[in-house]
Parts: sequence; structure tokens; C-alpha cells
Amino acid sequence: MQKTKPDVDRVFQALGDPTRRAILEKLSQGPISVSRLAEPLGITLAAVVQHLQVLEASGLARTEKTGRVRTCSIEPAGLSVAAQWIADRRSTWERRLDRLGDLLAEPEE
Amino acid sequence: MQKTKPDVDRVFQALGDPTRRAILEKLSQGPISVSRLAEPLGITLAAVVQHLQVLEASGLARTEKTGRVRTCSIEPAGLSVAAQWIADRRSTWERRLDRLGDLLAEPEE
Repeated sequence: MQKTKPDVDRVFQALGDPTRRAILEKLSQGPISVSRLAEPLGITLAAVVQHLQVLEASGLARTEKTGRVRTCSIEPAGLSVAAQWIADRRSTWERRLDRLGDLLAEPEE
Repeated sequence: MQKTKPDVDRVFQALGDPTRRAILEKLSQGPISVSRLAEPLGITLAAVVQHLQVLEASGLARTEKTGRVRTCSIEPAGLSVAAQWIADRRSTWERRLDRLGDLLAEPEE
């Protein structure tokens, strides 16, 4: 269980790898076992496990072991942190463009 | 001028560094010269230039030289690529939750 807010550095760093993004793409469709996740990606189970550890540590995924099967699922908190950071930058930038627009719309003296 | 669509790998990798995010935070408030950007960040001009090169290469910022002053500004295309990738994953995931909700709402036989 993710207790603290995901760290934005780690979230973006984790998302900077195409295999980890492919894993998240798959996880967004629903929980899946680690072994079934490895097959279509064409990488070893060991590589998938390593990527999952990075995704778990950054708050983008979680895994749970039931009996002999480890199931992984997406953790929305990580994506939210990244989305919020981007949205904050865009809103600052759009407010600035609005102010510029208002200035340009003012009638000439 | 950014001609091709920013590469999502490079965009997320660039965003994984706190100094680069601090630069983008500043740039979202409006264009600024490289030297004025370096001061509040408390890092050398050379370090700022290096970070700006990464931001330019990933489509997150652009710089322009007028006379002796190099001005940098935010490039919305890079942030858009990152935001779009996150939004796509969320929509897949939310559609799935909707379908689960529908199933749970069905009357018992």
C-alpha cells in the first residue's frame, strides 16, 4: 500500500522508459499476473520484475501475492502526481497568455 | 523551431530532474534571459545552459538569441505529449472501472 505521496522526480524518471510505459499501458486495462505480463512484452520475467520494482517504488503500480501468483495493478496516485505537475505549469502559462490577450484587446488611446 | 513531435521518452526523462522542472516553472511565467534564469536557481550559468539543451532537445523549451541576449521560453508541445500519454492511460483505466461498476449495478438473477 502506498502511504506517502509519490515523489514527482521518481514518477517522471520511471515514465522515461518505454518498457515501463508499455507495462503501465497493459496494467491500465486491468490487473494481471507478472508471468502473463512478461509474455507479450518479449522480455524475461526477471526484467519485468525489475521494472515493476521501479514502478512500485515510484507509486505507479502495486503488486500483491496470493498463493503462488503475484498480481500487479496500476496505482493511480503516481499518474495523478505527474498530471497535476503538468496541469499546474499549463495553468500558469495560460493565465499569462490571457493577460497578454487582454492587453492586446484594449482599445488604443 | 520544433518541427517533429516531441519524443515521449525524452520528455519524461527531462521532467525527471528537479532543476529542469524548476526551470520550466519559471518559464511558464513568461520568457526570460538565460542569465536571469540562473540567478534564483543558485546554479552556474553553465549548468543552466546544459539543462536548457536537454529541455530544447526534448521539445519542452526553446531559446532564441537576439543580439547578445539569449532568451528562453516554454514550448507547449513537450508538456502536451506527456499530458496526452497520461490522459490515455487514465481513460483506459476509467472505462474499465465504469464497466466493473455496470456489472456490479446489474440486478441479481
